This record gives sequence, C-alpha cells and structure tokens, in this order.
Amino acid sequence: MSLHEDMLRIGDQAVTAAHKLAALTTRKKNSILTAMADELEARQNTLRAANEKDLAAGRKAGLSAAMLDRLELTDARIAGMVKGIRDVVTLKDPVGDKISTWVRPNGLEIRKLRVPIGVIGIIYESRPNVTADAAVLCFKTSNAVILRGGKESVHSNAAIADALQEGGEKKGMPANAIQLLRTTDREAVKELVQMRGRVDLIIPRGGEGLIRTVAEMAHVPVIKHYKGVCHTFIDESADLDQALSISINAKCQRPGVCNAMETLLVHEKIAGEFVPRVVHAMIENGVEVRGDQIACTLDSAVKEATEDDWYAEYLDLILALKIVKNVDDAVDHINRYGSQHSDAIVAQSESAQRTFTQGVDSSTVYVNASTRFTDGGEFGMGAEIGISTDKLHARGPMGLEELTTYKYVVLGQGQIRE
Amino acid sequence: MSLHEDMLRIGDQAVTAAHKLAALTTRKKNSILTAMADELEARQNTLRAANEKDLAAGRKAGLSAAMLDRLELTDARIAGMVKGIRDVVTLKDPVGDKISTWVRPNGLEIRKLRVPIGVIGIIYESRPNVTADAAVLCFKTSNAVILRGGKESVHSNAAIADALQEGGEKKGMPANAIQLLRTTDREAVKELVQMRGRVDLIIPRGGEGLIRTVAEMAHVPVIKHYKGVCHTFIDESADLDQALSISINAKCQRPGVCNAMETLLVHEKIAGEFVPRVVHAMIENGVEVRGDQIACTLDSAVKEATEDDWYAEYLDLILALKIVKNVDDAVDHINRYGSQHSDAIVAQSESAQRTFTQGVDSSTVYVNASTRFTDGGEFGMGAEIGISTDKLHARGPMGLEELTTYKYVVLGQGQIRE
Repeated sequence: MSLHEDMLRIGDQAVTAAHKLAALTTRKKNSILTAMADELEARQNTLRAANEKDLAAGRKAGLSAAMLDRLELTDARIAGMVKGIRDVVTLKDPVGDKISTWVRPNGLEIRKLRVPIGVIGIIYESRPNVTADAAVLCFKTSNAVILRGGKESVHSNAAIADALQEGGEKKGMPANAIQLLRTTDREAVKELVQMRGRVDLIIPRGGEGLIRTVAEMAHVPVIKHYKGVCHTFIDESADLDQALSISINAKCQRPGVCNAMETLLVHEKIAGEFVPRVVHAMIENGVEVRGDQIACTLDSAVKEATEDDWYAEYLDLILALKIVKNVDDAVDHINRYGSQHSDAIVAQSESAQRTFTQGVDSSTVYVNASTRFTDGGEFGMGAEIGISTDKLHARGPMGLEELTTYKYVVLGQGQIRE
Repeated sequence: MSLHEDMLRIGDQAVTAAHKLAALTTRKKNSILTAMADELEARQNTLRAANEKDLAAGRKAGLSAAMLDRLELTDARIAGMVKGIRDVVTLKDPVGDKISTWVRPNGLEIRKLRVPIGVIGIIYESRPNVTADAAVLCFKTSNAVILRGGKESVHSNAAIADALQEGGEKKGMPANAIQLLRTTDREAVKELVQMRGRVDLIIPRGGEGLIRTVAEMAHVPVIKHYKGVCHTFIDESADLDQALSISINAKCQRPGVCNAMETLLVHEKIAGEFVPRVVHAMIENGVEVRGDQIACTLDSAVKEATEDDWYAEYLDLILALKIVKNVDDAVDHINRYGSQHSDAIVAQSESAQRTFTQGVDSSTVYVNASTRFTDGGEFGMGAEIGISTDKLHARGPMGLEELTTYKYVVLGQGQIRE
C-alpha cells in the first residue's frame, strides 16, 4: 500500500470514528478518559522502556542536553500526564451546549448548538507528553484525532497512543478515535494537511519553522501562531514601579516562551527617568538591551538596535527598547512589527488605555499586567490545546470550547417557504 | 507600477483604513451609511449610464438573456440597493459587544470582546448589486473591504463603489474603506487571495467553479460553500401529507438556489405508499425523477439514476430519489454524498429526529420543515453576506456577527506571573 493510500485509509478511519464519537454522552466519555489514565499509569514501565529507545537514539544522533531533557519521560512526567487526563475528566464538556435559540414569526425554532469539529490533526515536535495532552482534549470534545509527533519521540509517542486507545476501548471508545502516524516519512505530514474532506482542522505546535511549513502546505484550515513578538508600552501616565515590575516579569520570568516580552516601548516624556532604571534592572537580570538612538543616549549600557531587532522573537535574555512619542506611536509600532499575540500597556490614563486596547490588533491586550498571562491555565480554561494569533474561529489561548464548532438545528411543524 | 505592486498598495491602503474603521462609533457608521444611500439614490442616472455600457458590451459578447437580466440595473433594483443600505442602518452593530467576561483569582479581569476581522476580500460574479450589499455589511462591522466583481459588470460596479466611497467620505468615512479592483486581469484575483498579512478573509460568492478556483489559490482563510446537495428524508413515522408538501416546496419553489432539495430519501416501510404520490406530484410540477432500482419498480415514471446522481447539484427541476432502510442509512447517505449544507427529516418519532439531527454533519439540519429556509433573512439576521458549509468560524447563513472576530482585553492592577 502506498503512503498516499495508507493516509487516505487513516483519514477514512478517523471520519468513521468522528461520527461515532459525536453520539457519546459526557458520562461515557469521562469513563473512557478515566480508563485511559488508568492504562497509562499501569503501563509506566512500558512507557519508560519505549522512551529509553528514543533517548538512546537521541544520544547517538547527538541531540543537545536540552532536547534530551524535553524528550525524557520521567516517572514524574508520566504521573503529570495521568493527572492531566484526570483533570480533563472534571472539565465541562461544551458539546451539545445551546449557544442561542430563537423562534421565527412562522414558528420555526432555530437552535444554534455546539458540536465537535470532526477530525483534527495535531502536528508537534519533541515533547512526548503532547501525545496525551492533545489526544484527550480532542476526545473530550468528541473529535477524532490524528497525531503526528517528532521523529525523536516516535517510540514514546507510540507507547502513549497505544495506552490511550487500548485503555479507552476497554470502556467502549470507538476504534481509531486516537490515531498516531507511525511513519517518520515527512511526506506523511503533507498528505495529512492536504486531506480535504477527511481532515477538518490542523493544529501545529512547535517552532516557527514547523508551523510555516505546515501552513504553506495545507489545503485544510490551520489554527496557529507563528511567533510571539510581545510588547510592553510604558505610557507617560504609568506608575513607574508597576511598569518596572511588569517589564522585568514579562522579559525574565521565562524568556523562552511565546508570551514573553521581546520589545519595550517607552513614552518619551518619562524615558529620561524610566530608561536608566529599567536598563539597570534588566542588566542585573542578565538581559542584553538593544535600543534605538535615544535609548542609547539615555543609558550607555544600551547597545544599538537594527531594524531586524524590532521584528525579533529572541526567546532569550535580549530586549529591544524603543522610545515612542505617544500611545498612537506605540500602537502603530506594535501593529507594524508585532505578531498579534500579546501586548501590554502600563498606564493610569483611561484615555491611553482605551486608545491602546482598541488600536492594538492582537489576540490579547493587557492593561497594567504582564504579557506572561496568555495561557489557557492562567485564563481559567483548565487546559490549553494551543494559542492562536489567527483571526478566524479562535484567537488567544484555545481550550475545549475552541475545539468545537456549531450547527443549526431547526425545528418545524411542516413549514414551507412561500 | 506592476500588478503585484499595485495590489500590495491596495492591500496596505485597506489595512490603514481598517485601523481607522475600528475606532468609529456605531452612530458615526450609521450616519456614513445613510450618506452612502443618499449618494447612490442621487446618482441613479450615472449608475444607469454605467450599467448601459456593461449591457451593450454583454449583448455584443453574446451573453444569454438570463445573464443580461442578472446584469441589469433597473430603477427598481437601484431603489432596492438603497433600501438595503437603509435597512443595514437599523441592524444592531455587533462590534464592541462583550461576549463574556470573568475575573481570575489573582484579580485579572478577562473580557472577550467582539472586534472587526480587519480586511475582507469579496469575489463575486455578475450581479452588480452585490457591490453595495457586501460593502455595507463589511462597513457596518468596521471591516475594510476589497471588492472584485465579474468582468461583465465592471462599469456598474465602479459606479456603485464610487458612490458609496464618495458619499461616505462626506460624513467622514476613512479613505479606502471600500476599494474595488478596477482591472479585469485575472491575476489580480490570485494576488488578492494570497496577500497574507494584508487580507484577513476572503468570501467568494458565485458558482462552484469560481469558489473552487479561489479556494485552491488562496493563502488566506476563505469562508465558502461549494454547493448545496440538500436532502429530505421521509421517515416511516412521517405525516405523509406534510412530507409531500415539504418535498414539493424544497424541490420546486426555487430550484436554482443552493438550499433547494436535490435528493429525496424515503424509508422503505412507507415507500410503497409515498413514492407513487410524491413522484406523481413532482411530475405535475415539471420535475424529472431519477431513482434507484426500488423506486423504479414502485413507479414506472421514475428514470434510472446513476452513481453521479447522488452527488449532483442539479439546480434544476430534476430530483434524485432513493429508498433507504432506516434513519441510520439516511444519515450515512447524506454524510457520504451531501455537501454539509442543509438537510431535513420529516418524522413524528422523536428518536428518529434525534438520530438524524445528531448524525447529519451539515451546517443546518431541519425537522419537519423545508430546506429552503437556510437564508440570513429567514433566520432573522436581517442581512446575509453568504452561506458557509465550512466548520471553522461560521457555518450556515452568515450575518453581521459572522463578520467579526474577538480579542481578549485583560485588565490588571500590576499583576505579574509567579
């Protein structure tokens, strides 16, 4: 069987599973999820053994210590996956919710109901725990899932997916509700993202390179964020102590993630006072500061920035710093150089806050808080399948509700159109 | 200037306009809409003269009488466009609506707010009135629009777009809020649908050929329906008088539109009684009936259907007729051959209704009503920008709300992430 035929078969199996999943009650789904967690727990040794194969291959291939660390399934991480599943059991199932309902003058009752999307493809990189996290969120929302993990974690992913599918089947999970692509052939990704009519949505999770590749090849919808070039703007009306604390948190608390700040914008009226303070504090935290000409004049520790710095997602202890004329100038800078992810204003002026929150065209806009809060857990969603900087369907952190769509069910008593 | 550069300029202008549009109040937008309607009304003679050029070119090019009819701007149609704009003034503006809002334990207030999508491209065929209809719905929702009409109506579209933009500017509409592509170069469509970062959404309106071409070339999201292969299933529990009336309405009331029925499915237990009745009534209404083997046996007026008939969107007085074993069989048929547009069950049995509405994976599912109601006006949306059979963002009839997205605005008092 060719790869193409094999992928079509996997797609057809997913469609069949999706139709069966749509009929499961929440109670049934929760009992299946519990069985998945139990099975994963019971197979700890199998998982460790599979993971050891990946680690050995990784060491042989010369993966970095950081990569090997991401790859490793420790007992604590397995316990974390199991707990993650049990947490998903407690989350509200959005499927079947009435979004709205109304009656037309002719008596037709129109119900807008939340339903599963259908078949979702998840494409991710090295962390094997994504296999469980993504699969159970798709399952809880009655979506069939096709998983494609990184080649480094191929044995670990298979062991996890087997445990979930086989554990779930003990409680009546439909066959092929959770499928994992076992081949490491890169052509399989292309097939997956081009399966119109079989795959309804692709969610890529990983670095910008992976996401761009997927988005460019895809013939089916993709929800994604390419990167997070997040800004904090310190207005002239800011409480400067608050501004300092928020800036340091946004840059330094975890610099390698998409909601960390990359560029700090400072209103020119308070730049003389604030820039030396914030630069000093950044340097104390090990941050290299690259600024525009005015920033360089205000503090000699600032290195000169180039045009590329305004576009940069450093994911590192580096900060771009720019002095702006006013809030409008800050908004223009963010809409031009930003990534529509998360941007913050620190200001006491309500007028500046309004101009900023209305003008900045990003998924999440903060007033007097750190950009680091863009996260499904921090938003109270209970779980996160990803973050979107797209404008259609879902923006910002995506939880269970964002894994659903809706349909109209219209109830009549014989109405015909005149 | 090359076409490519010209399109980038148009895209940049739309982005600039979109940022300005986002700041307009509903009151301001309504006064601009009224000015557009006034201007269109005042330019009736200009519109007629421009339209006469298109009609003359159309006659010369040998367009069919039906095409020429679609192209013609009569006084009544101009009055219809003007009234359409005045109606949009009265519709509720969804921009700025709070979809939901909640406070986290750390005091962060998360607001999910409805905002414009940004820049929307509308690609349509010969009817010039779409120029006004689409432009004003995009404007009411603070989206910048780039219009691309059919080459047959190029002069009419330009006259309408000029009236809207110039009329609107008298009341302060931002420049380039409504742009029309004046070139008939087909490459311009390709450029338009590939402008990532400048165009946020494409809505194609027209025949399946146009929509497939657009969807296949697009690098930006497209919301669409390819076709409407709509079904009516008559269950064994149906009131057969109701079944007959709904079937005739769904097939015959306006056969050339996407929500007309193309295939009738009949439960085998009532086929002996119902098939001769419905076939007789269809033939009286001028409908050619193509059925499966059992249907042919039940009524000699039924011609034999081929596999292609089950996929066909006839848009004509032709009906495919199939006898099915039960509701599950009907659901399977619809999910296999249908277009996820609109499908109906006629049944008194609540269990059959539930199986059908849950199982059929279509944007709109009817119980005891005609599929012809899938329409923004019939749904009470007041206006319709199109119908979607996609699963992301919008399904079914799309009104003003479907031309918006959301953003999160998060209000803090200095919160940082621990």
